[in-house]
Amino acid sequence: MTGKKKLKVHFKPDNVEIVVDQGENLLQAAIAAGVRIYASCGGAGTCGTCKVQIEEGEVETTRTDKISDQEFSKGIRQACQSRVLSDLSVYVPVESRLEKAVLAREQKQVSEVLATGWRFVPPLTKYFVELPSPTLDDNTSDLSRLLRGLRQRYRLSNLSIDFHVVQKLASTLRDGNWKATVTTLVTAVKPRAGDRRRPRVINIEAGDTRDKHHSLAFDIGTTTVCGQLLDLNRGRVVAESMAYNGQISYGEDVITRIAYCQKTGGLKKLQQAVVATINGIIEELQAQSKVDAERIGHLMVAGNTTMTQILLGLNPQHLRLTPYTPVANFFPPVPASSLGIKAGDHAQIFLFPAVASYVGGDIVSGIVGAGVHQRKVLTFFMDIGTNGEIVIGNSDWMVTASCSAGPAFEGGGIKHGIIAAEGAIEDVEINPSNYEPKVGTIGSVKPKGICGSGLINAVAELLATGVIGQNGKFNQNLPTKRVRPSADGYEYVLAWAKETQTGSDIVITEVDIDNLMRAKAAMYAGCKTLSKSVGIGGCDFDQVVIAGAFGSNIDVKRAITIGLLPDLPEERFIFIGNGALLGARLTSFSTDLLDDARRVAQMMTNLELSENVDFMNNYVAALFLPHTNAEEFPTVSKRLASKSNNNPKERIKV
Amino acid sequence: MTGKKKLKVHFKPDNVEIVVDQGENLLQAAIAAGVRIYASCGGAGTCGTCKVQIEEGEVETTRTDKISDQEFSKGIRQACQSRVLSDLSVYVPVESRLEKAVLAREQKQVSEVLATGWRFVPPLTKYFVELPSPTLDDNTSDLSRLLRGLRQRYRLSNLSIDFHVVQKLASTLRDGNWKATVTTLVTAVKPRAGDRRRPRVINIEAGDTRDKHHSLAFDIGTTTVCGQLLDLNRGRVVAESMAYNGQISYGEDVITRIAYCQKTGGLKKLQQAVVATINGIIEELQAQSKVDAERIGHLMVAGNTTMTQILLGLNPQHLRLTPYTPVANFFPPVPASSLGIKAGDHAQIFLFPAVASYVGGDIVSGIVGAGVHQRKVLTFFMDIGTNGEIVIGNSDWMVTASCSAGPAFEGGGIKHGIIAAEGAIEDVEINPSNYEPKVGTIGSVKPKGICGSGLINAVAELLATGVIGQNGKFNQNLPTKRVRPSADGYEYVLAWAKETQTGSDIVITEVDIDNLMRAKAAMYAGCKTLSKSVGIGGCDFDQVVIAGAFGSNIDVKRAITIGLLPDLPEERFIFIGNGALLGARLTSFSTDLLDDARRVAQMMTNLELSENVDFMNNYVAALFLPHTNAEEFPTVSKRLASKSNNNPKERIKV
Repeated sequence: MTGKKKLKVHFKPDNVEIVVDQGENLLQAAIAAGVRIYASCGGAGTCGTCKVQIEEGEVETTRTDKISDQEFSKGIRQACQSRVLSDLSVYVPVESRLEKAVLAREQKQVSEVLATGWRFVPPLTKYFVELPSPTLDDNTSDLSRLLRGLRQRYRLSNLSIDFHVVQKLASTLRDGNWKATVTTLVTAVKPRAGDRRRPRVINIEAGDTRDKHHSLAFDIGTTTVCGQLLDLNRGRVVAESMAYNGQISYGEDVITRIAYCQKTGGLKKLQQAVVATINGIIEELQAQSKVDAERIGHLMVAGNTTMTQILLGLNPQHLRLTPYTPVANFFPPVPASSLGIKAGDHAQIFLFPAVASYVGGDIVSGIVGAGVHQRKVLTFFMDIGTNGEIVIGNSDWMVTASCSAGPAFEGGGIKHGIIAAEGAIEDVEINPSNYEPKVGTIGSVKPKGICGSGLINAVAELLATGVIGQNGKFNQNLPTKRVRPSADGYEYVLAWAKETQTGSDIVITEVDIDNLMRAKAAMYAGCKTLSKSVGIGGCDFDQVVIAGAFGSNIDVKRAITIGLLPDLPEERFIFIGNGALLGARLTSFSTDLLDDARRVAQMMTNLELSENVDFMNNYVAALFLPHTNAEEFPTVSKRLASKSNNNPKERIKV
Repeated sequence: MTGKKKLKVHFKPDNVEIVVDQGENLLQAAIAAGVRIYASCGGAGTCGTCKVQIEEGEVETTRTDKISDQEFSKGIRQACQSRVLSDLSVYVPVESRLEKAVLAREQKQVSEVLATGWRFVPPLTKYFVELPSPTLDDNTSDLSRLLRGLRQRYRLSNLSIDFHVVQKLASTLRDGNWKATVTTLVTAVKPRAGDRRRPRVINIEAGDTRDKHHSLAFDIGTTTVCGQLLDLNRGRVVAESMAYNGQISYGEDVITRIAYCQKTGGLKKLQQAVVATINGIIEELQAQSKVDAERIGHLMVAGNTTMTQILLGLNPQHLRLTPYTPVANFFPPVPASSLGIKAGDHAQIFLFPAVASYVGGDIVSGIVGAGVHQRKVLTFFMDIGTNGEIVIGNSDWMVTASCSAGPAFEGGGIKHGIIAAEGAIEDVEINPSNYEPKVGTIGSVKPKGICGSGLINAVAELLATGVIGQNGKFNQNLPTKRVRPSADGYEYVLAWAKETQTGSDIVITEVDIDNLMRAKAAMYAGCKTLSKSVGIGGCDFDQVVIAGAFGSNIDVKRAITIGLLPDLPEERFIFIGNGALLGARLTSFSTDLLDDARRVAQMMTNLELSENVDFMNNYVAALFLPHTNAEEFPTVSKRLASKSNNNPKERIKV
């Protein structure tokens, strides 16, 4: 302890007060108080992002050119350049807050939709305390001493304590000479307004370890698992990695995985497989970042309902049989160590709540990440994959459904279909004069096969150039060798054997086209059925948010051409990429969004389509390119009509 | 589901509502609603304890002679004899409530002091639900279905769920055909008024298991461990057992135990020893009661601070060194299984909060059990043992201290001292004419030695008959062979070799008397020091509550004679026996008392006597029989004076 004068600094709008020595740096004081000020240059004074307004009291400031005369006269100062001279009241404007930095960073990668209006208050928080050593006059227990310190310095009360913290408390406090860093986790969502949270103390470390403060965001997909290591002080991604879900060896889709779980030891095997995948990703993240596993205190995990249940060792058997009930749609926090996940011993896993058996935490996470629940505009949210999940709604209500699209979008059930990896044909253009294709592959290498987005593009081109009709059947009379009969009906050769890696022709068959039509019909019928269920009827959405790695690669115009996406102006479509990971990441930064996730899961109404008559009718009506009802796709119909009427050789711009 | 009409029954003052079939028995409806009505005859209609008042609505009743005409006209009915005919509003008067029965039962055993004013609402509660099976229209998750059922039937919300409950949820619900019994535990104490509790769902069982609802109350003493198996439906003790603490082999008192913990593996060994003792008692309780371990969901444990820390595996090293700090003075609930305790897999242990290193949960439990915190009267509470703990206070404030009395009260450090077991000399009368003693032993067998209470009685008699002086030294000039010199100074022969089990003379030496004087001086000095610390100064307490097995056996008048107890009228002394166990038992029946325990631990101010100058002065002043200041023991002084002045041969009545 120095002999310096003690001063109070009060920060607004957080309403946090801290006692500091006279002369303390104001940015450091804010950090110590848990007030999140954005200092992109790290406190060098060069960025000007840490501006605060001194409402009362006196600071000594080194003025730089980042502060205008007008600002200076209003009491605006750079926190990093200011020292505390008296008791202060300091206002931190929204532009200087850390959430602003997070949003700015995210916006670059994602799109214009993103959850906003949240405060940067991670559910996992670290607090540093310096405690007086015990004396005969003050020999309260170590635990009471710690709680008193937290209450006095951070106004923290109403804490619950994990027993393993009590177990190491005495030695940790003494090892750090009565200086320690406590990690708290907020898990319980406020059940009603006015209820106070009860943060859980999950760890204590000797000394000041606030600078080592990390968590993980995970998207556990049926096919791939993506993980990000986050820095909770700076609100950014430190490292990122992905891997195929190790469960793939036991079945490609959720149905085969659920079936596998019914074998003796099957569930355990699948659980271990995904845990191994997660641990592999964590190792990779650590290798990239040099962050110790012990510094990772939290995992925010979004997965579909089946993946979530298997990860937790909850038998998914009832998910697959009518009436399709999950064991739980929200989960208590689970210690990472209890599942064999190699993060900190104290690390807890938060699983995003699910809506139903086939609308999982990944969708809830995507909705929250994209801020769909915050906006009044009518949104159509879709995550396209084997199970296309769709949501319609806004901040007031949401309906959701899962459409069994089948594996076509992921290249499954397609003769030369492959997943979207190097060598997959992704882009296709067909010359309307000679029906010759120009193909582009991922990695610009020789083609190996065709991926889902490539298939959509190819079929849209085949339709636009009249190679196939609106019923998906080939025009057998065209002057090209590319269209030819085969064992599976007619087919179109996208690449000749000599041009491919496989040494065989790569083709699209009528069966492939049929599979794609069924997949897109399921999605579109799902959308129509949901829409009708809430009395809207049509598909005139203010915005269409497309999530999922697959979704990011599709060409909107061509997807509209085949009738996968509704016929709306292109500017209404927004791609957010991996929405599940986005939501998991943002929620790791803000307890506000954690609350939102629970609320969103509860407000969504699930519609089971599997035995819904309306859905079946819509589905049959959609088994056409783009649709049996031309009026639902006016711009496509107009283009197709203009082509057939005017110039059969001219390629329709799709 | 029957086709009967559904009716609402509202119970006051609990304000609980339940929906039942028309014709349902009203007592059954109350039980189902969790309203605790006392029905001592089990619903046969013969005891008349389950009277309720029908405020609104109609019941069909079989009237018995237990209801007077006046009662009948006021709407009073026996719940067990009434059937619900319409929606009802029912008032349950205090005389019909279960806590009344518990108090009546306790009062017989204990004394006139007992915590009152609490409701019979055990922290561990069972709720039975019948849930609708899932359908396509209602295919919410199993967990949501369960919570919905609990909310609808019991208005329960804001629950947290243990993960292992989620793990067995799907199979349990289906095994019981959607009928299940849920066990909840209230652990968090309301941190401030208005905060709602967040009950924890710790178990689920298939079907209706409400009738099998048990918990354990334990007192973990340094020497003995006492356990009781409780029936939480009926508020009574089902079985009771005790055993020596297995740690005794590692040291007799807490100091040697703490020292043993510093050896490699020492803490673990002591922990295992007490767990083995607890498990032995649980086995015995089960053997007596035929209750399955799986039906035991809770353990309420009171122990001194050292015993509590060792049980939890928390190193007690800092308890023994100045400034004497416990690791914690309150504890999160700990799963019994994590300590190796053989109760239900789901069972949780609640440890009574402690005040300081030498004022533990056992004292807090005793205070709560005796209701000291509920009364305005000035109370002196003492638990006499190796560490005599004392408390002074009332409902507004309490101060406490531990006095290192040494082991004399338990027979330790006494030449022929033994613990209070069969063969211990307990009662002593000395004939003032010839100085011959009449001794009584526990079990009325030949004497083996002398126990603490026997020693007090003997010394009081020796003093009263002038065999020893007020300085504790023998009168060497008496005409008796019983007083004789020995290696340790003079001694008095209580029993000749031929009369004893040991075949040797049983004696009391001047060293023994000196040890006893030091022990009683520590207790009395502690009382005086505490009293002065709060500005009272004297010892004029409205009541003196004496807890502890040892305490129960002492003779008040003789204890006053030697200066152990303050010189107050006999009617102010109240014996509560094992106060720690009493508090643990009552708290198992009432969450109100659980709250009280935490509040009491927080309101007690601990005074460290070990380096207190005032205590040292008081201690030295008390090294006399009864005290150097005769005015503090006026009645004793008067009796002693009358003896020496008037008739030296007449035995003073002590």
